[in-house]
Amino acid sequence: MAKKVITFGEIMLRLAPEGYYRFVQAESFEATFGGGEANVAVSLANYGFDAKFVTKLPKHEIGQTAINSLRRYGVDTSYIKRGGDRIGIYYLEKGASQRPSKVIYDRAGSSIATAKKDDFNWEEIFKDAQWFHFTGITPAIDDELASICLDACKMAKEMGITISCDLNYRNKLWSREKAGRVMDELCQYVDVCIANEEDAADVFGIKAADTDVTKGTVNHEGYKEVANQLAQRFHFSKVAITLRESLSANDNNWSAMLYDGNDYYFSKKYKMHIVDRVGGGDSFGGGLICACLNGYDAQKTIEFAVAASCLKHSIEGDFNMVSVDEVLKLAQGDASGRVQR
Amino acid sequence: MAKKVITFGEIMLRLAPEGYYRFVQAESFEATFGGGEANVAVSLANYGFDAKFVTKLPKHEIGQTAINSLRRYGVDTSYIKRGGDRIGIYYLEKGASQRPSKVIYDRAGSSIATAKKDDFNWEEIFKDAQWFHFTGITPAIDDELASICLDACKMAKEMGITISCDLNYRNKLWSREKAGRVMDELCQYVDVCIANEEDAADVFGIKAADTDVTKGTVNHEGYKEVANQLAQRFHFSKVAITLRESLSANDNNWSAMLYDGNDYYFSKKYKMHIVDRVGGGDSFGGGLICACLNGYDAQKTIEFAVAASCLKHSIEGDFNMVSVDEVLKLAQGDASGRVQR
Amino acid sequence: MAKKVITFGEIMLRLAPEGYYRFVQAESFEATFGGGEANVAVSLANYGFDAKFVTKLPKHEIGQTAINSLRRYGVDTSYIKRGGDRIGIYYLEKGASQRPSKVIYDRAGSSIATAKKDDFNWEEIFKDAQWFHFTGITPAIDDELASICLDACKMAKEMGITISCDLNYRNKLWSREKAGRVMDELCQYVDVCIANEEDAADVFGIKAADTDVTKGTVNHEGYKEVANQLAQRFHFSKVAITLRESLSANDNNWSAMLYDGNDYYFSKKYKMHIVDRVGGGDSFGGGLICACLNGYDAQKTIEFAVAASCLKHSIEGDFNMVSVDEVLKLAQGDASGRVQR
Amino acid sequence: MAKKVITFGEIMLRLAPEGYYRFVQAESFEATFGGGEANVAVSLANYGFDAKFVTKLPKHEIGQTAINSLRRYGVDTSYIKRGGDRIGIYYLEKGASQRPSKVIYDRAGSSIATAKKDDFNWEEIFKDAQWFHFTGITPAIDDELASICLDACKMAKEMGITISCDLNYRNKLWSREKAGRVMDELCQYVDVCIANEEDAADVFGIKAADTDVTKGTVNHEGYKEVANQLAQRFHFSKVAITLRESLSANDNNWSAMLYDGNDYYFSKKYKMHIVDRVGGGDSFGGGLICACLNGYDAQKTIEFAVAASCLKHSIEGDFNMVSVDEVLKLAQGDASGRVQR
Amino acid sequence: MAKKVITFGEIMLRLAPEGYYRFVQAESFEATFGGGEANVAVSLANYGFDAKFVTKLPKHEIGQTAINSLRRYGVDTSYIKRGGDRIGIYYLEKGASQRPSKVIYDRAGSSIATAKKDDFNWEEIFKDAQWFHFTGITPAIDDELASICLDACKMAKEMGITISCDLNYRNKLWSREKAGRVMDELCQYVDVCIANEEDAADVFGIKAADTDVTKGTVNHEGYKEVANQLAQRFHFSKVAITLRESLSANDNNWSAMLYDGNDYYFSKKYKMHIVDRVGGGDSFGGGLICACLNGYDAQKTIEFAVAASCLKHSIEGDFNMVSVDEVLKLAQGDASGRVQR
Amino acid sequence: MAKKVITFGEIMLRLAPEGYYRFVQAESFEATFGGGEANVAVSLANYGFDAKFVTKLPKHEIGQTAINSLRRYGVDTSYIKRGGDRIGIYYLEKGASQRPSKVIYDRAGSSIATAKKDDFNWEEIFKDAQWFHFTGITPAIDDELASICLDACKMAKEMGITISCDLNYRNKLWSREKAGRVMDELCQYVDVCIANEEDAADVFGIKAADTDVTKGTVNHEGYKEVANQLAQRFHFSKVAITLRESLSANDNNWSAMLYDGNDYYFSKKYKMHIVDRVGGGDSFGGGLICACLNGYDAQKTIEFAVAASCLKHSIEGDFNMVSVDEVLKLAQGDASGRVQR
Repeated sequence: MAKKVITFGEIMLRLAPEGYYRFVQAESFEATFGGGEANVAVSLANYGFDAKFVTKLPKHEIGQTAINSLRRYGVDTSYIKRGGDRIGIYYLEKGASQRPSKVIYDRAGSSIATAKKDDFNWEEIFKDAQWFHFTGITPAIDDELASICLDACKMAKEMGITISCDLNYRNKLWSREKAGRVMDELCQYVDVCIANEEDAADVFGIKAADTDVTKGTVNHEGYKEVANQLAQRFHFSKVAITLRESLSANDNNWSAMLYDGNDYYFSKKYKMHIVDRVGGGDSFGGGLICACLNGYDAQKTIEFAVAASCLKHSIEGDFNMVSVDEVLKLAQGDASGRVQR
Repeated sequence: MAKKVITFGEIMLRLAPEGYYRFVQAESFEATFGGGEANVAVSLANYGFDAKFVTKLPKHEIGQTAINSLRRYGVDTSYIKRGGDRIGIYYLEKGASQRPSKVIYDRAGSSIATAKKDDFNWEEIFKDAQWFHFTGITPAIDDELASICLDACKMAKEMGITISCDLNYRNKLWSREKAGRVMDELCQYVDVCIANEEDAADVFGIKAADTDVTKGTVNHEGYKEVANQLAQRFHFSKVAITLRESLSANDNNWSAMLYDGNDYYFSKKYKMHIVDRVGGGDSFGGGLICACLNGYDAQKTIEFAVAASCLKHSIEGDFNMVSVDEVLKLAQGDASGRVQR
Repeated sequence: MAKKVITFGEIMLRLAPEGYYRFVQAESFEATFGGGEANVAVSLANYGFDAKFVTKLPKHEIGQTAINSLRRYGVDTSYIKRGGDRIGIYYLEKGASQRPSKVIYDRAGSSIATAKKDDFNWEEIFKDAQWFHFTGITPAIDDELASICLDACKMAKEMGITISCDLNYRNKLWSREKAGRVMDELCQYVDVCIANEEDAADVFGIKAADTDVTKGTVNHEGYKEVANQLAQRFHFSKVAITLRESLSANDNNWSAMLYDGNDYYFSKKYKMHIVDRVGGGDSFGGGLICACLNGYDAQKTIEFAVAASCLKHSIEGDFNMVSVDEVLKLAQGDASGRVQR
Repeated sequence: MAKKVITFGEIMLRLAPEGYYRFVQAESFEATFGGGEANVAVSLANYGFDAKFVTKLPKHEIGQTAINSLRRYGVDTSYIKRGGDRIGIYYLEKGASQRPSKVIYDRAGSSIATAKKDDFNWEEIFKDAQWFHFTGITPAIDDELASICLDACKMAKEMGITISCDLNYRNKLWSREKAGRVMDELCQYVDVCIANEEDAADVFGIKAADTDVTKGTVNHEGYKEVANQLAQRFHFSKVAITLRESLSANDNNWSAMLYDGNDYYFSKKYKMHIVDRVGGGDSFGGGLICACLNGYDAQKTIEFAVAASCLKHSIEGDFNMVSVDEVLKLAQGDASGRVQR
Repeated sequence: MAKKVITFGEIMLRLAPEGYYRFVQAESFEATFGGGEANVAVSLANYGFDAKFVTKLPKHEIGQTAINSLRRYGVDTSYIKRGGDRIGIYYLEKGASQRPSKVIYDRAGSSIATAKKDDFNWEEIFKDAQWFHFTGITPAIDDELASICLDACKMAKEMGITISCDLNYRNKLWSREKAGRVMDELCQYVDVCIANEEDAADVFGIKAADTDVTKGTVNHEGYKEVANQLAQRFHFSKVAITLRESLSANDNNWSAMLYDGNDYYFSKKYKMHIVDRVGGGDSFGGGLICACLNGYDAQKTIEFAVAASCLKHSIEGDFNMVSVDEVLKLAQGDASGRVQR
Repeated sequence: MAKKVITFGEIMLRLAPEGYYRFVQAESFEATFGGGEANVAVSLANYGFDAKFVTKLPKHEIGQTAINSLRRYGVDTSYIKRGGDRIGIYYLEKGASQRPSKVIYDRAGSSIATAKKDDFNWEEIFKDAQWFHFTGITPAIDDELASICLDACKMAKEMGITISCDLNYRNKLWSREKAGRVMDELCQYVDVCIANEEDAADVFGIKAADTDVTKGTVNHEGYKEVANQLAQRFHFSKVAITLRESLSANDNNWSAMLYDGNDYYFSKKYKMHIVDRVGGGDSFGGGLICACLNGYDAQKTIEFAVAASCLKHSIEGDFNMVSVDEVLKLAQGDASGRVQR
């Protein structure tokens, strides 16, 4: 029996001009779906887990298409509540070289943003589950959503389920101040905390020394202190921080650090030539949860999570379409890209 | 100097799967723009008029792309107000044979739906204009919009500008009762009334005898009485009614009637094999306004408007991309479709 | 709880040039999946049933993609056996006007063609099922497959499950003589027999009088006798025969007859403008099974099945992507194709 | 050994918006190649003849691509002269319903239009050939081309090669008066004359009674007299006239008449739903030459030529991609469009 | 009121195979439009100026489509003369790695190449204008064009308008000798001279020491002397020289130098991963003119122009689709390519 | 008269998702054709040789399309035997960054795999030929094929034709042991041996010291010994070994070594940014044969072969679409990728 993992949040229609066309040049949009927690669910389904994604989606065909995009890759969608008026949208323009990628959100009024507490029966949803995952985006969408997240966390804790949270700060959705307040309460229930090189500073004001992300360098040592402070404040059993060095829209260096309360484990650093950067952080979360559920040791865990997300950057769309074998092969050192016949 | 025409309303992003794919099969959407009054503006720009479209659009690139889609075809966009959060969207699935086309609207919260009275200075907008056109969709969007329409009508009347209105009833936007009430007031100012075979019944309860639109036949005689009642009630100088016979999603018969207060003028009837049916009614409105501004007699006017909209059904997208010469050629009788070398 | 239906057979990769391009003009192929029994499973999943498709597919990614194409539309794929070397392929060239569509099969050596008896545990598969469906294609693929079909039929009968079979004669796969012999044995277990206007003659030598399918006409009366003979010989509780009149590759007339052992029920005849003809017969089977499971009376049953398959002809791909509501709307008489807003 | 046929003329780059998009909507062009005599050469290569196309093309890659488009389908291109500056272009907008297709020519200054007499060694080219074909387009391009055509005709006659000419009047290239004068001289050498329902009137002023091509009807009887007059004036052994009835851009009736000096043979009439109408006449010429070279009798000849060109209307691009078997199957009566498995 | 800028020259249809396909592999062409001065006009419209492009284009739909491509992005096209026979074409094959991009020109006989002096009324065109821009391509097209350029320069000078010229030598259009002679006369009127790393040598024989452009390095110091000589000879107020280092078709280094008669200002050097290199020089010109009109100081001017053209290399098509804000952000140092949400 | 070269082997249908999509994301496949010896034939046709490709292909349209893909680029296909059931297929997923490309073969049962000795008359095929080329793939397909290869080698030797063989080991087709045994016999007849950095070890157990191909480095010196051993064992007149350093799926270093029995000649090393890596080795073989037939000296030969294959990596598809001029330009040192106008 595959282990059961629940993720909860928003899935959006992603509309992207083909290739490197700018928005104003586009005559059509590639239409896929994605969202922080949905992306993690797909990762975990691809790794062989019984991944269930929980959200609310409108009854019309566009809502159905979002569900189909998850079913296609093996995610269980039976807990998705149908209702409300619309699905959130994000428009994505892929950057290149010195031109950054651009995201325009159109998510107000979506079914999930207008969901109510009684849309979700957490006791039933969590039955037989091992893990619950959400990100800082979900409570940011709406106060009711934040309250639903809190319910879910309490129920998960009560039922003995491990909880992970990716801080994932979005400044379009809420202020640093409000994020700090809401996340502070939720993080009391969280076991495994995931963050990128900016989140801890944005949400909790915990900053790494000597790092300016627009310069393409991060000071790895500074993040030890960040992880340590986070763990102390919230009693996290694990803190994982991704360390992106953005050299250009095409070229990024990618690595991460795991703190298990005792030691700091740094992964290899990958020099990536990017196909699609969106969902990079989520694929790290997916890899981390997989590694934890598979019982890997700390070093193998962080190597697996980073290799998984490294591969994601070579894949179109939000979802990370890789298998455990593919991730392990890269984590174990074959990055030559030689043709597999 | 080209005559100046103002149209006011919503322009939406139109997302349509390629060819005859259903929504749930789509991997990409063709992204064009359209909306009742915007479509009329494009028609008139193509006929050589100085057509200005008035609306409100967000400042971001998707809003800009909507503007560009109008500028591309020569519509003056300088009175478009920028602001608000989003552009309305409609998803379009093209039908075929016995399978009808399907439209899903996602227009709540759009910039135009949240526009305010002082976003538009009608006195400045109407300077030197000959004609003002709007449809029943605009006042249906929001009460404030209805009020803005009324302001525009009053100012247009005061400035001696001819006003046309396409009743264009949309049951997703308002009830028959409310439509009747609001349109009753607006129609006091209207000179030229345009309707399809169902609108007068939906909005004002004025029904043609012996017609069931789902059966693919319309009783032409019954519409004389409809036009007569409309003209009497609102003192319209002209009433034009399109008479679509829908045999299947691919095959429609298309004709129309014009009532000028004295006589009823019926056009030829065209047997159309449809490429894209959306915007068919708007292209009729555009043709009618063109014919009126060009001073055609009543019979030529209705033939021109019907030929224009007949050609629209052979063209992809909401916009009618035809010239006066092309319309006249068809109206004068060459429907053979022989290659023009 | 949705009723459970099992279908068993082959699913193939369908490679089709875009639009109306001929094979020798193609630079790319649209890649979808289809096969008689898989198509029926998708129909039934779309109608809300718990449809399970049973087959054997290779472990590589192309096999996985076939599975994903089914999961996407809600078919349960958990009984699909993985193994073997390849997935069968069919190349499809879409015809137009007087030019017929063309199919090239490349299915030898596929995983299902080389499947063995112990790949399938019918007792487990049929647990809680109401209905079992297969077609004449499956036993034609290989002698072992014919034997597996017989096992399945025997087990289904033993477990009280209704069995339907679409005769579906394919002359590339076996001779009329062999088809007759094998199908004769299998049909002893079948309750509901489905055939097109040629199958009964091809498989059992039971011919309708006065019909030449290349002339675009079928003699409906002659098929009463065909149904009667079939029912008598195999004790079928129902015989349903589709009556295609092929006027051209684009235009077909479509109707069917149902014989319930007492009376003959003819459906309305639809004049179809075809988008994609492949899977037309399977969509009839899917509609028929749905109608039977929903307990419709005989006339409603045949109208539902024919309306369902009529709509299929307007949809790209093998799968019939329609809901019960859409089929009922057409069956109840609205074939006008008017835009649904 | 396959019989050798020579055709001589222009091949152009054909730039066409996808599907039914109008020129002003196009963001890309499908790029194929075509031209009256090149199209005939491809037809004949598809029928198994050793077809050689003679023209002049620039040395650059676009010229090479034109050659490759012919080689791909088996046309011998070894007599194509390389040189000059450019390849002629025609832009094609596909019509639909009442909207006609539109062609914009951009052929001035092309390599073939600036070819010189010594670019072609007709004695060598015609070695072992059975048939020479050209159309009225070639001499219309340039006076030097007309003179080269005359040389070719004289040499062909001297070497005992059958000559066919499709009158193919193009009013953008020359006046009726000049066409009449030049073609009068060339037709002295021609054995088989091909024309459409308008050519004889345009070029030689020989009109069919009671026919107005924009009305979608042709008076078949009137064309007997046209053929008779043509045959008498130029001593043609055969005159073949295609009789297109253009009901709309999508729907045409198609038939033809052959006069062999004694009798008039009319073909069946096909009701076509058109995929691509361009090259329709050329495919008739190709079919006719094939039938003559294969020694079919007069009725079979005209049926073959009409069936061949009927099928062309269902095929994208200028070239007719059909085999002798496919044409014979249709000519012998199976127009049902049933799937060929 | 936006400042008014006039540019004059040719706009061509650009036909490019998709992605990295070679010409001989192409089945379709992306159809966009571009040309040195048109590209500058689009840049300036994007920066908010009232940019007017002057040229001559045929009346047919392809000419109209060129106009629409400019209107779409806000360029004023009301001074474009309609007439003549054709629009010039260039075929573009995009290079990759060691394989260079390839351009085939087909511009002879275009409407602009056959334009006459009285097609343009410069006094009217220049009314209220601040700036006039042309490139060395326009006078190279035809002697009459050179003469029209001279007229324009004289009138601009008389009306007190600043004149900029991009030397832009094209060896397919004229010899170095003729270019030198014609440009010598025109440059007497020019205020701001723009050149790439080869132009000054090609046109005026003024060479930078120690530079071989095929080796991927340029000697920056040598260009100081080039700028100085140019400024002395023609009394330019500014000389700007771009310094491309071409490492491969994908990877270029990009920087530039500005000489203002007193000092030499070098920009940062960008390491670019190229999406589309065509129009790179024009986007520099557009950035330079924008910076001058906005009154930036010399260092900010050259940084702005280089950042603008750096971004162009990441954008498909000839046109540079960036805003002043985007350019300033890069010029001020954020080249990290981080996603903008 | 162009020199005549014969190549013999399999050509497969290559099905590849667009761009960087993974198999499980694909909705369509680009359909091209390729295979070791077919690729060499296309290279040689592009270099101006009379290249003839020998294989067996089914009679249906997909077989014909394979032939057309060769004719299009000038390969003589008249010795291709028609018959058998299917064409082999390979599915190709293009890798990126750390994600390797993936190939799934589906070639069992193909026409060539089931070919018989009397399908090929080698004496007739080799008439007037200078060169015969095959690869280690052909004898690996089937024992009969190995035997046919041996026949061909014997006949070629007898007729004085130079024989080249690319070892091209494929572990999916045969074991190292069997490969070694079969190739040992065939290599007795070979004059020119081609191998990549792994083949000699795989087939004959001859290993280069200090090389681990998954680490992205090769020890050039070690390959001298490999070449020496190969030449001594089989009396090859020339041994050429390609030396790929795979840094990632996008970035490879590329060079090669030629041993002529006396000296070792190393080429320049190219740093490639890859468009399509498949066929890279074949394009080296094509370049090498061209250089030999043109009589280049040893250093020019290896530079030509490496430059040819370097360019291949920038071209989509299996075939190398470059001319002798283009290869020489790169081999002589211009790798700047500057636009060729």
